[in-house]
Amino acid sequence: MEKAIILLSCPDKEGIVSAISGFISQHQGNIEHADQHIDAQNGILFMRIEWSLERFTLPKTEISSAFRPLAEQFHMNWSLHFFQDTPRVAIFVSRNLHCLYDLLLRFRDGQLKCEIPLVISNHKEAEKAAGHFSVEFRHFFVSSDNKESIEKEQLELLRQHDIDLVVLARYMQILTPQMVNAFSRRIINIHHSFLPAFIGKDPYGQAHKKGVKIIGATSHYVTEALDNGPIIEQDTVRISHRDSREDLIRKGQDLEKMVLSRAVQWHLERKILVYNHKTVVFD
Amino acid sequence: MEKAIILLSCPDKEGIVSAISGFISQHQGNIEHADQHIDAQNGILFMRIEWSLERFTLPKTEISSAFRPLAEQFHMNWSLHFFQDTPRVAIFVSRNLHCLYDLLLRFRDGQLKCEIPLVISNHKEAEKAAGHFSVEFRHFFVSSDNKESIEKEQLELLRQHDIDLVVLARYMQILTPQMVNAFSRRIINIHHSFLPAFIGKDPYGQAHKKGVKIIGATSHYVTEALDNGPIIEQDTVRISHRDSREDLIRKGQDLEKMVLSRAVQWHLERKILVYNHKTVVFD
Amino acid sequence: MEKAIILLSCPDKEGIVSAISGFISQHQGNIEHADQHIDAQNGILFMRIEWSLERFTLPKTEISSAFRPLAEQFHMNWSLHFFQDTPRVAIFVSRNLHCLYDLLLRFRDGQLKCEIPLVISNHKEAEKAAGHFSVEFRHFFVSSDNKESIEKEQLELLRQHDIDLVVLARYMQILTPQMVNAFSRRIINIHHSFLPAFIGKDPYGQAHKKGVKIIGATSHYVTEALDNGPIIEQDTVRISHRDSREDLIRKGQDLEKMVLSRAVQWHLERKILVYNHKTVVFD
Amino acid sequence: MEKAIILLSCPDKEGIVSAISGFISQHQGNIEHADQHIDAQNGILFMRIEWSLERFTLPKTEISSAFRPLAEQFHMNWSLHFFQDTPRVAIFVSRNLHCLYDLLLRFRDGQLKCEIPLVISNHKEAEKAAGHFSVEFRHFFVSSDNKESIEKEQLELLRQHDIDLVVLARYMQILTPQMVNAFSRRIINIHHSFLPAFIGKDPYGQAHKKGVKIIGATSHYVTEALDNGPIIEQDTVRISHRDSREDLIRKGQDLEKMVLSRAVQWHLERKILVYNHKTVVFD
Repeated sequence: MEKAIILLSCPDKEGIVSAISGFISQHQGNIEHADQHIDAQNGILFMRIEWSLERFTLPKTEISSAFRPLAEQFHMNWSLHFFQDTPRVAIFVSRNLHCLYDLLLRFRDGQLKCEIPLVISNHKEAEKAAGHFSVEFRHFFVSSDNKESIEKEQLELLRQHDIDLVVLARYMQILTPQMVNAFSRRIINIHHSFLPAFIGKDPYGQAHKKGVKIIGATSHYVTEALDNGPIIEQDTVRISHRDSREDLIRKGQDLEKMVLSRAVQWHLERKILVYNHKTVVFD
Repeated sequence: MEKAIILLSCPDKEGIVSAISGFISQHQGNIEHADQHIDAQNGILFMRIEWSLERFTLPKTEISSAFRPLAEQFHMNWSLHFFQDTPRVAIFVSRNLHCLYDLLLRFRDGQLKCEIPLVISNHKEAEKAAGHFSVEFRHFFVSSDNKESIEKEQLELLRQHDIDLVVLARYMQILTPQMVNAFSRRIINIHHSFLPAFIGKDPYGQAHKKGVKIIGATSHYVTEALDNGPIIEQDTVRISHRDSREDLIRKGQDLEKMVLSRAVQWHLERKILVYNHKTVVFD
Repeated sequence: MEKAIILLSCPDKEGIVSAISGFISQHQGNIEHADQHIDAQNGILFMRIEWSLERFTLPKTEISSAFRPLAEQFHMNWSLHFFQDTPRVAIFVSRNLHCLYDLLLRFRDGQLKCEIPLVISNHKEAEKAAGHFSVEFRHFFVSSDNKESIEKEQLELLRQHDIDLVVLARYMQILTPQMVNAFSRRIINIHHSFLPAFIGKDPYGQAHKKGVKIIGATSHYVTEALDNGPIIEQDTVRISHRDSREDLIRKGQDLEKMVLSRAVQWHLERKILVYNHKTVVFD
Repeated sequence: MEKAIILLSCPDKEGIVSAISGFISQHQGNIEHADQHIDAQNGILFMRIEWSLERFTLPKTEISSAFRPLAEQFHMNWSLHFFQDTPRVAIFVSRNLHCLYDLLLRFRDGQLKCEIPLVISNHKEAEKAAGHFSVEFRHFFVSSDNKESIEKEQLELLRQHDIDLVVLARYMQILTPQMVNAFSRRIINIHHSFLPAFIGKDPYGQAHKKGVKIIGATSHYVTEALDNGPIIEQDTVRISHRDSREDLIRKGQDLEKMVLSRAVQWHLERKILVYNHKTVVFD
């Protein structure tokens, strides 16, 4: 059963919801989910609408052009997606494999609607894990000298594999602007702190030194500013004075897995809209 | 700025969302919130739609009759509410006053959109609290012998005060069917356990004896079956073997206040739909 | 650096803490952790004390007999453990592999101080996972007819592998009393509900039908009464009316993994004392 | 039943626990709680020990001098407290009264073991609340010009009322060093963010702008560095893109009340030790 999804934002105005649902209805589409959010302060409407194409009278290839006049009338930023177009994901990882295993296991259990054809690493530790799940593994030796040329090779590889989304599953290298811009809003990172606290290196060590009573993890889209992209999801867990930095690392790993996998799932399900450096995440 | 809200449920069918938003749009209403949920298993659509009446071309008194044909066409259960119709709330309480104070403080801080003209109790402890917030206090001595006749008096009092919603804020009396039925789906209770665990008396004592590691609180609509009405909200907090039954009571009180006040707020904002003995709570 | 741990409970009495710490101190032991709990209602003292044997003047083999007079004087239930005695764990699993992978990954990352020489299953799905972590896999076809004889074989296998702890990591068979009694207080199960709510089959289905707003998971020692053994750990996660039974299963799996692995870790670190059908879990 | 409590920290060394428990035991004291923590990295022992004086053979006035030789031998930082010495608390508040009401209600319900003889404010809003609980209210008009002289008056007032602990329950004035130093480690503040994120003004506005998915509150001892004293307690709550800055304020208030009252309770129960700009909070 094929479905279509439109994600959009536009200046809030009378009649938008009616116009969009009318468009779907007049072609015999049945709306299965519709969610909207109005940023009253800035007068912007955000909307996600999902409908069944079972009896839809327009063929898939004509929906976009049929919808365009409406989109232009209301000055929409919009994108059209089809449920059966399965996104293709590449996972970047360094030595800590808990997020990699977590994503591959969820993928195998059918919880992530995607293909995962490629794992890229600057270390060798992940090779066996990728193999266990029959995913191609590619190793790149990255240094401060060769980062740009290595990224060029990686970008070529991503193109060859037709990758839609890059997931940094504890990848301990800072990407250069060429990579960030090539996959703008299509790179998701997990940072092991409750951002904006503890940006940068060793956030668990920073949290331990500060004496906080709760730690967190944050998944976000990658932008050129380090650990500062639009936040997709966060979660926290209680700690105490008894917890060493190593205990924080261990407790934090559970958060990292959940927070990263939720962000990836929501992205794949086309539930995320970015605006003003923030995200709207529809239920 | 007056707004209208329609809450509805009906068999899911093509064109409903479009028909409803079209109705609002054709009379120049601007939809400010629209939320829907489809119970795919049972084929039921639930919807809450809120729109501004600022430029709406129908007068308030005619909206209901204008909407009726649409409602009948789609076999809706529906209700129409106006933002400026402030519901009137009576609070029932016994000796534990934390939920009473919490509700009255939130009311005074403008967090609960209602009037609270009346506090009813089977004890005297709450009198001073009611007075501090300038709310009328009525005491009834309740025994197993006089419960029905007392309830008759209380019902008369609720009618005189034009009460829309009854909140049992730790009221330690079981209501009889006459009261429950007179305010069907308009009585909210707080039960001091994570239902369906620990129904009935002394749930904190039961939880302590069982050795659970987490306790909870549950707010629900009152039905004739004890502690078994549709659940509106729940929350939990971690405990340990160090916590005595008294510690559980103390920790649980924070949950009770939050869980009850959220339920009351959502009810007042017309965000709750009941079906199949469960609730849909729109964001 | 070898350490000794004593776990004990006894009637609370003046001088116990002093006597125990004096015993350690007089033989030059340095107390690294000491934790106690007094059940004031029942007058019982619980204690866990861990000390370094680096300069301890008693050899390991003589500690037990040297401590016995003290233990008898205070009528203690007690056990002595050594940090370097690594417990040996067998994991039982059926078709859902998320808890199995989670335990094996934590084991490989050094988070669980044990050996895991054996995975037992009534299905074949877990074989490849066990192989990936180089753990022996044994399959048993279990039916209602052969359960007792199969358990005899399994018990023999556990004895051959010198197993100290059995972990039921989503093992969908009810053990008979012969197995439960052979490993009394040494079988840990994960139940996929917030006990005591939703005992027995399909707890996520039960929770979905009831309309709860939070679901949970519970790890406990297995006793002859189904899902009713002493609770070790619980955790909860918020859900909404939008979540189907399948969503509950998916969200619950994250809880199951965390709640089971914590229980196993605490058991391995000798942090759990059972009394009155409840647990004391020291920090 | 009078009890004594000793809080101490000292370099970790063999025999400390034994020496302390031996001291109590030799005078017939019964240890009711003993909790310790070793900072292994810095080799520091922290301890809290509470014992019954029912049959203790030393009079209260002699305990301190009897314990001193032991304290000096082990180079302890230590303090001795008696359960029946009820601390006296002054609450400072500005216009937001939720924390003030919360503390006064818990006090009246017997949850806070203290006296609260004084409420100080730079506004008039709190006067009626203080009166309702029969607590003296003192108003000071504070401006940037008169802050130092007003603080001198306030300090004199605190001395007259024999105040042990100052609680800043949403007091929107920055204290000068004279006040901070006069009540060093005896001023507890609530900051309405998850520190170290969002220091300073309007943290809810900052959080809303940043687009975080979780907000928090932090209670801490006040030091000369703004919002940077040792953290006592934190808690967090989930938010979404639907929440306005006003929603964050409302949701955050529940956190503020819980996080502040826990810190006050633990301080009153002598459960907090400060070191390295962090806190040890014993169970």
